[in-house]
Amino acid sequence: MDLADLQSTMRTTYFERDSARGRDATFRWLTEEVGELAKAMRTGDRENLQHEFGDVLAWLLSLANVEGVQLEAAIAPYAKGCPRCGASPCGCPVPG
Amino acid sequence: MDLADLQSTMRTTYFERDSARGRDATFRWLTEEVGELAKAMRTGDRENLQHEFGDVLAWLLSLANVEGVQLEAAIAPYAKGCPRCGASPCGCPVPG
Repeated sequence: MDLADLQSTMRTTYFERDSARGRDATFRWLTEEVGELAKAMRTGDRENLQHEFGDVLAWLLSLANVEGVQLEAAIAPYAKGCPRCGASPCGCPVPG
Repeated sequence: MDLADLQSTMRTTYFERDSARGRDATFRWLTEEVGELAKAMRTGDRENLQHEFGDVLAWLLSLANVEGVQLEAAIAPYAKGCPRCGASPCGCPVPG
């Protein structure tokens, strides 16, 4: 699945209501879904876990549309390995 | 950019350290990046904003790898429009 196509579909589907809701309320929805993902990690329901990962990505795409950011361009530095050390597997010092 | 390929690259690059860190610490990193995204939305630095969107998606992919979830499968219900009403643009009642 192409990430740019997905963002375009999300724009067609939701941009009118995303932009009417605004950036702050859209960010709030994103964090609500992050909370639901946390709960799904706790309950062990695999189907629900997958569903919540999808909802987090959907709201991240909605927020990116509201902010005018292309998620494909944003993630591009990771497409060929670690953006810091350039290696895959990453060879950076392990952070805390 | 293909989302499944991206998740596979992220797995090659980071899975060893993601799995060693564990699900809870990886989730914590995801929320740290969500916080940095909030800050980037406030400051108006467009380059940093794009960067933070990328980091949120990167950590969401890392967490999905740790949890054994394919993000492409998770987002599939959104690929052809609204998963609830089936339309694009979405025709669902506007939530609160």
